[in-house]
Amino acid sequence: MVETVKWTPEGVVMIDQTKLPRTVEFVTCRTYEEVADAIRTMVVRGAPAIGVAAAMGVALGVVRTPAELLEREFPKICATLAATRPTAVNLFWAIDRMKRLYESLRGASAERVREALVAEALRIYEEDIAVNRAIGAHGAPLVPDGRSVLTHCNAGALATAGYGTALGVIRAAAEAGKRVHVFADETRPFLQGARLTAWELMQDGIPVTLITDNMAGHFLKSGRIGCVIVGADRIARNGDTANKIGTYPVAVLARENNVPFYVAAPISTLDLTLASGDLIPIEERPAAEVTHVFGVPLAPEGVAVENPAFDVTPARYITAIITERGVARPPFEESLPALAAAPQTEEVRP
Amino acid sequence: MVETVKWTPEGVVMIDQTKLPRTVEFVTCRTYEEVADAIRTMVVRGAPAIGVAAAMGVALGVVRTPAELLEREFPKICATLAATRPTAVNLFWAIDRMKRLYESLRGASAERVREALVAEALRIYEEDIAVNRAIGAHGAPLVPDGRSVLTHCNAGALATAGYGTALGVIRAAAEAGKRVHVFADETRPFLQGARLTAWELMQDGIPVTLITDNMAGHFLKSGRIGCVIVGADRIARNGDTANKIGTYPVAVLARENNVPFYVAAPISTLDLTLASGDLIPIEERPAAEVTHVFGVPLAPEGVAVENPAFDVTPARYITAIITERGVARPPFEESLPALAAAPQTEEVRP
Repeated sequence: MVETVKWTPEGVVMIDQTKLPRTVEFVTCRTYEEVADAIRTMVVRGAPAIGVAAAMGVALGVVRTPAELLEREFPKICATLAATRPTAVNLFWAIDRMKRLYESLRGASAERVREALVAEALRIYEEDIAVNRAIGAHGAPLVPDGRSVLTHCNAGALATAGYGTALGVIRAAAEAGKRVHVFADETRPFLQGARLTAWELMQDGIPVTLITDNMAGHFLKSGRIGCVIVGADRIARNGDTANKIGTYPVAVLARENNVPFYVAAPISTLDLTLASGDLIPIEERPAAEVTHVFGVPLAPEGVAVENPAFDVTPARYITAIITERGVARPPFEESLPALAAAPQTEEVRP
Repeated sequence: MVETVKWTPEGVVMIDQTKLPRTVEFVTCRTYEEVADAIRTMVVRGAPAIGVAAAMGVALGVVRTPAELLEREFPKICATLAATRPTAVNLFWAIDRMKRLYESLRGASAERVREALVAEALRIYEEDIAVNRAIGAHGAPLVPDGRSVLTHCNAGALATAGYGTALGVIRAAAEAGKRVHVFADETRPFLQGARLTAWELMQDGIPVTLITDNMAGHFLKSGRIGCVIVGADRIARNGDTANKIGTYPVAVLARENNVPFYVAAPISTLDLTLASGDLIPIEERPAAEVTHVFGVPLAPEGVAVENPAFDVTPARYITAIITERGVARPPFEESLPALAAAPQTEEVRP
């Protein structure tokens, strides 16, 4: 299985997701600033993977900072990593978890603090894989046998520490013997579907057909799609879900054609502090992502562009939210807080 | 104004729409086979422009065929041009019109036949511009002042003999003094929105913002879009409309957000022989259009692709259809045949 992000003695090693699938290249981030840059420029992307990378970034910053400067530097390390991307809440969740541990170690030796923070980052990494397997186990029964599943963007191994959320559900269904075929939206402008999802599924031998985003409606109407499964970057208390731009249209088209629409995400993607999706900050990314592909210009020079990286799918379009602690169904205002408060299951901490 | 397609002594001259906007290059088709190739490879595209090009292709074939062979060659000329693209009905409408004229001239001299067919192709060309101006005049009152209009693909001067259908309505609204801003969907895979619509509107000084197709839902939900206007490739008797892939999702999202959705098209786009859109043939185009952009690979080698070039928007999502003879409103089963049977207005034949 592909290793999205990995802790090594040299630093945090990531597969460069801006270059896949034509070039399989690994980047070693030797400082926390390099980890922050890698998150900002989408060398690593996907809400859970960003969380893992940020935790490792905090650990790297702590390891590389002289003991006498750590007290002063630690808040800066956390702030730099938190300022990279605004929408995915897993980033803040992971940094907060590292912060809480750091604060609980006040007075401990620098050596002890370093060891503990590195161990915590590795725990977040390992937990993420276990969480994804649990999401897969809960979600697999929802995947219809012998029909197509539509997915948008990449919520796969490359978006997580491994296995994937939406693609984890698809993998678990395939492992359970279901005949699954996937329609992958190419996912402009960054092409995560064409570059990452198609690549991952082909490596696993799961049949995949690549389509442009605007074809999803046609195939949902055709009756060939049994369900939609996507990931999430942040889920508000009422179930409204921010995910990659283009998710909301797929959800509306799924409902219009009576196709179930599932969100697969870890509990760490919940933001129970937000009453609704209207409060989720939406990142605006550079125009060049829209006007150019691999450096090739597609549009007239100087054209105005808007490039919101995410949209918000209102909860009323979501059939269910698949988490590592079970499947939440509407009304999400009740089911999500209940799941968040539930004790972790054995699947989560094996 | 850009000249999309033009009759010259050397042959049919077209602006090469596969190369815009970075390269403005003209192609001269010296035989009807070259015209057929240009239609198939989308050097010229857009339902009305395809109709004009096909009419000129028939005229070119007739002019270049020795008199004694014409009787045998004429059906072949028409069949070759008709076999280029299956969805846009204007292609068949234009060829049929040339055929009917040819048959009415049975017994006339070769010289007379040639002159008449060239004159007819030029008439189709000139009528198309007048038709577009009339569509613009009928549609302009529907464009809200000071709001954004969303369009998909290119239904502009480049899709017609000139002025455009959907963009003709926008141009007419701008000429009438309305403050119009356009959101242009980039329109994967062929990028007509990014390459052609943005370019046309920038040349006219009409403010345009380029977005990816999957952002349309986000902006329709935002309340910033006052109406959607698109073109059409074939409209069935009940109003179901085939247009560029991605039109159906926009229509569903417009209705979901209470934004009017207008189709702008000439009467020649109506196919009253078809009871519904289910009967419209949908062209499947080469996979390379999806996997590559300007020759640059975007996806893993060998990935499976589907590439339907059009989708069908059920009539229930369409607020009105703007034609050169007036605006058709539901029930379209009644309004469309009535418009088709109506005498042509002064606007159409000035």
